[in-house]
Amino acid sequence: FLRQHVVRLHESELGHLLEAIQPDQRMALIRLLGADFDLTALTEVDEAIRLEIVEQMPNAQIAAAIGELDSDDAVYILEDLNKEDQEEILAQLPFTERVRLRRALDYPEQSAGRRMQTEFVAVPPFWTIGQTIDYMREEEELPESFTQIFVIDPTFKLLGIVDLDRILRTKRLVRIESIMRETNYPIPAEMDQEDAAQIFEQYDLLSAAVVDDNGRLVGVLTIDDVVDVIQEEAEEDFMRLGGVGDEELSDSLIDTSRSRVPWLMVNLVTAFMAASVIGLFEGTIQEIVALAVLMPIVAGMGGNAGSQTMTVTVRALATRNLDIHNAWRVIRREAGVGLINGLFFGIVVGVVSGFWFEDANLGFVISAAMIINMFAAAVAGIAIPMVLDRTGADPAVSSAVFVTAITDIAGFFSFLGLATWWLLR
Amino acid sequence: FLRQHVVRLHESELGHLLEAIQPDQRMALIRLLGADFDLTALTEVDEAIRLEIVEQMPNAQIAAAIGELDSDDAVYILEDLNKEDQEEILAQLPFTERVRLRRALDYPEQSAGRRMQTEFVAVPPFWTIGQTIDYMREEEELPESFTQIFVIDPTFKLLGIVDLDRILRTKRLVRIESIMRETNYPIPAEMDQEDAAQIFEQYDLLSAAVVDDNGRLVGVLTIDDVVDVIQEEAEEDFMRLGGVGDEELSDSLIDTSRSRVPWLMVNLVTAFMAASVIGLFEGTIQEIVALAVLMPIVAGMGGNAGSQTMTVTVRALATRNLDIHNAWRVIRREAGVGLINGLFFGIVVGVVSGFWFEDANLGFVISAAMIINMFAAAVAGIAIPMVLDRTGADPAVSSAVFVTAITDIAGFFSFLGLATWWLLR
Ligand SMILES: [Mg+2]
Ligand SMILES: [Mg+2]
Ligand SMILES: [Mg+2]
Ligand SMILES: [Mg+2]
Ligand SMILES: [Mg+2]
Ligand SMILES: [Mg+2]
Ligand SMILES: [Mg+2]
Ligand SMILES: [Mg+2]
Ligand SMILES: [Mg+2]
Ligand SMILES: [Mg+2]
Ligand SMILES: [Mg+2]
Ligand SMILES: [Mg+2]
Ligand SMILES: [Mg+2]
Repeated sequence: FLRQHVVRLHESELGHLLEAIQPDQRMALIRLLGADFDLTALTEVDEAIRLEIVEQMPNAQIAAAIGELDSDDAVYILEDLNKEDQEEILAQLPFTERVRLRRALDYPEQSAGRRMQTEFVAVPPFWTIGQTIDYMREEEELPESFTQIFVIDPTFKLLGIVDLDRILRTKRLVRIESIMRETNYPIPAEMDQEDAAQIFEQYDLLSAAVVDDNGRLVGVLTIDDVVDVIQEEAEEDFMRLGGVGDEELSDSLIDTSRSRVPWLMVNLVTAFMAASVIGLFEGTIQEIVALAVLMPIVAGMGGNAGSQTMTVTVRALATRNLDIHNAWRVIRREAGVGLINGLFFGIVVGVVSGFWFEDANLGFVISAAMIINMFAAAVAGIAIPMVLDRTGADPAVSSAVFVTAITDIAGFFSFLGLATWWLLR
Repeated sequence: FLRQHVVRLHESELGHLLEAIQPDQRMALIRLLGADFDLTALTEVDEAIRLEIVEQMPNAQIAAAIGELDSDDAVYILEDLNKEDQEEILAQLPFTERVRLRRALDYPEQSAGRRMQTEFVAVPPFWTIGQTIDYMREEEELPESFTQIFVIDPTFKLLGIVDLDRILRTKRLVRIESIMRETNYPIPAEMDQEDAAQIFEQYDLLSAAVVDDNGRLVGVLTIDDVVDVIQEEAEEDFMRLGGVGDEELSDSLIDTSRSRVPWLMVNLVTAFMAASVIGLFEGTIQEIVALAVLMPIVAGMGGNAGSQTMTVTVRALATRNLDIHNAWRVIRREAGVGLINGLFFGIVVGVVSGFWFEDANLGFVISAAMIINMFAAAVAGIAIPMVLDRTGADPAVSSAVFVTAITDIAGFFSFLGLATWWLLR
């Protein structure tokens, strides 16, 4: 029987299954599972599908099922709902549950407070290992899984952390406080998830305490959710570099078309700007048509060189590898690379073009234009993302369009300008 | 005293420090630290710097220090050395250590076997919880930290896994075999690290058993190292999309210039191909110079639309979100997006161009060319990465150049061709 089989699936497998089947089969499958449907599976599907499913489920059923989830998964599902549905579902939850979820939802989007779970194990410092183990053996309300426990004072102030393997290696009579370690990285609940992920990566954490303004423990951030954050943030940067918003594979034809328009629109404006630069030199092109043949090479090679530099810069900024300390060194290096590769490709293109059109002067002009444009490309490729980053904009989202605009305009202007001045004397 | 301060740093902080200071200060700092220098810090620095440091350290000192490391970190440092140094260092290690490291180094690069550590806790199924805890309290040779223990038979065949929190929740007299769970995801040592990371992400693993061909436990892959793999692979794809190889921020000017040349070279070839397409229509351009002004718009907009589609496709392939099941749907969607946006931008560009050059026919021609090119862009943007992926090539590394080549050539050909046929009748 299908039902038996599906119930045994891992939540992520059920999520994939829901994504793969037809929209009308989704609700049928969920109805078939009934109370056995684990909402955790919804944290594994694309947002569009999650909303579609949640909107079709009765709020009462959602409320019942959401009580079973870890608080972070519950928040993940609730945060995308409209305010009304959110309130209606929260109202049907038991008091403590409701308060916890509301508090998490009050933290800013994409903050550590949104991604943390409020289920954790915390003990006082004066307990012994034996007491702690006995407590864990008796207590029913433990989180589903955990890798460390927290040591707190009566006001919930975080005193330290103990890894489970330390507990297992230690004799029963030893006190918790003598084996706990201070954590250097308690994560403020308001911290952006990306910065929190950075801390996990650097210090190889499995989980981390999330604290409020007063240093009180409010939740735990766990590595499995941080891995999702890392994945999402990398995806975001990759898509932005390619001029795509946060669309998903399951988005409809119309949504996808529409979401791609803004970027193409901005590019259209800069394309007309570049075209009008060419327009300035119509007379020159009429005289020497070879210029029209060669000019895309100058602009295109500049664009490619610029996007190489830009890619390195955007990535280094995203991973916090580029900062005040090494900025000058990297800027000098990129400018140097621009000059060297400009010289190299300038000469290659000059020689090839000179022979093609049997015109040495044309060769010189295109060489010079290539050198100028590849140097401009390097400078633009590093300066634009850094300036955007400084002003608080996301360098990944807007650098590409500016860099191409500059390399197109500088390429056409230097090539056609030099040609007008040198060849039409 | 500087030394005291540095010794207390976390390995990753020491790594950052080593990257930040001048090359000649690096060895001075390492000599200052002497035997306190934790080689783990070297796993946190760029490859160029790691090699530079390791080459300057005497092999005897490296051998002594490498014995202290977890085997995965030791392999990470050893794998980049030349064969001679590797052998010399291995020869100075104790027998068991040497055998373990050699075995890991025998697995293919970037495989799970290379990233695993050979230190783990394994117990027989018939032990009780109490015995297991007592063993962990007495045993000195435990891994530095761990989150689960493995259950094996006398031949090291993997029987199951027990999370530490399960052990702590269970009474002393219960037997391991009754609380162990079968793992559905033992990782073959030959598996590519990227596939292994995918399994960690999907099933939210903290660590996973790595097994050989006979299902025998040979090591453990831990989430902190998998996070590094995820980070590296995302970085690789991002850089490749931008036409950059695996360069690092610390690479020298010359190395960087040289590493960027191949990509620019390939682009140069396609740029000349596109230029020769324009060359076919020199006569037409001579008649109507406006064509030279407008043609970069057709090519450029196609290039941008194509790179949007390509970005989505490359990313979906990398995250295994695009496969046989949804390929047709996504292809149809992208073709549809290409048509709709082609129509929209074709009309916009046609109208603007028509008014600019006061020539309605020119407007019609550029509209038609835009529609053709943006549809070609969509098809190329999805087909090229999928074909590359099928043939085993990395779609991230080579898609961009093919897509731009196609959108340039199709753009120039359709625009200038239509113009020749329609405007010069
Ligand atoms: Mg609960
Ligand atoms: Mg969300
Ligand atoms: Mg963010
Ligand atoms: Mg790390
Ligand atoms: Mg969670
Ligand atoms: Mg999850
Ligand atoms: Mg970001
Ligand atoms: Mg390596
Ligand atoms: Mg790989
Ligand atoms: Mg996951
Ligand atoms: Mg490790
Ligand atoms: Mg590490
Ligand atoms: Mg890859």
